[in-house]
Amino acid sequence: HSVFFKEFRSLSDDRKEIIQGTGHAYSLFLQSIIDEGQKIGQIDQNLDSKLATAGIVGMLNSMSFWYHDGGSWGPESIGSQFAEQVVLGLVKEEYLATTGGRKALLEAIHEELT
Amino acid sequence: HSVFFKEFRSLSDDRKEIIQGTGHAYSLFLQSIIDEGQKIGQIDQNLDSKLATAGIVGMLNSMSFWYHDGGSWGPESIGSQFAEQVVLGLVKEEYLATTGGRKALLEAIHEELT
Repeated sequence: HSVFFKEFRSLSDDRKEIIQGTGHAYSLFLQSIIDEGQKIGQIDQNLDSKLATAGIVGMLNSMSFWYHDGGSWGPESIGSQFAEQVVLGLVKEEYLATTGGRKALLEAIHEELT
Repeated sequence: HSVFFKEFRSLSDDRKEIIQGTGHAYSLFLQSIIDEGQKIGQIDQNLDSKLATAGIVGMLNSMSFWYHDGGSWGPESIGSQFAEQVVLGLVKEEYLATTGGRKALLEAIHEELT
C-alpha cells in the first residue's frame, strides 16, 4: 500500500483512471449490497450506506499496510474476523435474532469463505 | 492523509518516531479496551484483539482520505455511525441483550459523544 501511494503518482493519467475506477466500482458494489440489505430490513436503516461503505473500504484497504506473507494472520483468519466485525456492525438485531443469532451468522460467514 | 504519506518521509528520524509512537500508543490503548471487554465478557472472546484493533484503526484512519470541512458528513455523524459499526461488530449478543439491545446501546453511544 505504501508502495501503491508512492508509485501511483508516477503512472500515466489513463492508468490512474483504470485503477481508481476499479476501486470505485468495488465501493459502489459494496454500497449496493448495503442498500439492498436496508430495503429488505436486514441492515439498520439509520445507517448512511455511503458512509458505512467508506469505513469498510478503509478497514479493508488498511490490510495492505500491515499484511505480509507468513505473518501471524493468514488470509482466512483476517477474512473471517473482518467479515464478522463488518457484518455484525451493520445487521439489525431483529434480523440477527430470526437467523439464529451471532453464532449462526458467523458459521454462515465461515461456510461462505471456505 | 495523502499529504501525510507524502511529507512523512521528509521528516527527521526523531520526529518520525514521535508520530509513529503516538499512533502506536493509540492502537495499544484501543487494544487494551478490547482485551478488557473480552475479560469481562462483553466482547466476543473469539476475536483476536490485535487484528480487531488493526481493522478499526484502518477504518478510522481512512477518514483522512475523504473527510473535508463542510462535506456531507460532519464529525458528529461520522463519529456516531462509526462508533455504532465498530462497537456492534465486537460485542457479544448476550451482553447486548442484557443492556437493552442495539437501540439502547446506540443511545448510550450518542450520549457519550454529545
